[in-house]
Amino acid sequence: MGKLTFDISMSLDGFVAGPNVRPEAGLGEGGERLHEWAYDLKAFREPHGESGGEVNPDSEVLEETMQAPGAMLVGRGMFGGGTGPWGEDRAWGDKPWDGWWGDEPPFFRPVFVITHHGREPLVKGETTFTFVTDGIESALEQARAAAGDRDVAIGGGANVIQQYLKAGLVDEFQIHIAPIFLGQGVRLFDDCGDLDSDLEIARVVESPAVTHVRYRVVR
Amino acid sequence: MGKLTFDISMSLDGFVAGPNVRPEAGLGEGGERLHEWAYDLKAFREPHGESGGEVNPDSEVLEETMQAPGAMLVGRGMFGGGTGPWGEDRAWGDKPWDGWWGDEPPFFRPVFVITHHGREPLVKGETTFTFVTDGIESALEQARAAAGDRDVAIGGGANVIQQYLKAGLVDEFQIHIAPIFLGQGVRLFDDCGDLDSDLEIARVVESPAVTHVRYRVVR
Repeated sequence: MGKLTFDISMSLDGFVAGPNVRPEAGLGEGGERLHEWAYDLKAFREPHGESGGEVNPDSEVLEETMQAPGAMLVGRGMFGGGTGPWGEDRAWGDKPWDGWWGDEPPFFRPVFVITHHGREPLVKGETTFTFVTDGIESALEQARAAAGDRDVAIGGGANVIQQYLKAGLVDEFQIHIAPIFLGQGVRLFDDCGDLDSDLEIARVVESPAVTHVRYRVVR
Repeated sequence: MGKLTFDISMSLDGFVAGPNVRPEAGLGEGGERLHEWAYDLKAFREPHGESGGEVNPDSEVLEETMQAPGAMLVGRGMFGGGTGPWGEDRAWGDKPWDGWWGDEPPFFRPVFVITHHGREPLVKGETTFTFVTDGIESALEQARAAAGDRDVAIGGGANVIQQYLKAGLVDEFQIHIAPIFLGQGVRLFDDCGDLDSDLEIARVVESPAVTHVRYRVVR
């Protein structure tokens, strides 16, 4: 069985999104700066359908991050933002909102969406979204079955990551510590003082743009 | 002229002290875990009058940190904790409270204490404490004069560090990112979203115990 992991960019002051997250600004105000280290990398451009881009230690980390998981877990907001069922409050009408990601989502693997609103699986390009309504453990079980021997990665948002962390289910995670301050927004590690586990530093990759630190959760 | 710097241990969730900081627990509850990476190092033990200890990349970082500054700036709490003049509410009586540090404080250089309460300089072992009542810029000026060509380091607490950061006076700082969660306490980078400066990553030193990242402030 693979590990349960997550990878996320965090500002030096602890935020993974800026203030005022909303459908048209899923990273909040200023939140796009969290990912500045990634946008010009080949490993970012390629899955988003663009050619070229830099190859360096950051792109190796990103490539590894994007290739390792056999399945992913995401919250409703990560699928489609907003506050309605599947985050579809903008497009609630004749047919369900099909999420942020267009016809070729950059996942290329099974994605399990944790939501309160059931719905048939949605196939978009090489990605199948499965909607899970009976909680994070059920979603993990289904994702593990889909991933086989490979890892399952939590794609976000912060709330879903926290739920898995607090349930003691995460095995490893990597923080891309961006050299920025956001000042306000969504904190990744809110109220994480009571976790019944220790962390070990598993790996550090440094670059001029960002510091990648991988932690192992020891129970 | 040297740089204005600071070095501080921070939990992965952004705290530099636990909750309930008080005179007899200056790091708050659980806050001593922030410095676990340091206690067994030769570079920590020696200035505290103890022999032996480990020599490794962490001790090299710590040694450099402790040797570089020609003078230090500290807040009232760092001198003596508590809430009275010079933090002396526990010992307000015939003579002024002489701070936490006993007869051989581990500074070994001029220390400028930022306070509202004037007082004659206090000499303890190889450390002279000078009490500055006319603000952080005056304290910096006096510390620079004492340091000559060497750096001036802000010893803490978080509040004094934030004042210098927000005034745009800090040139470089190093965060020792400890692989722990505190959950509550004193956040180092509270409300730092409006800083009129960018950060560059100047150096990363990795170890199994802690991740040392030095940032340069670019104005």
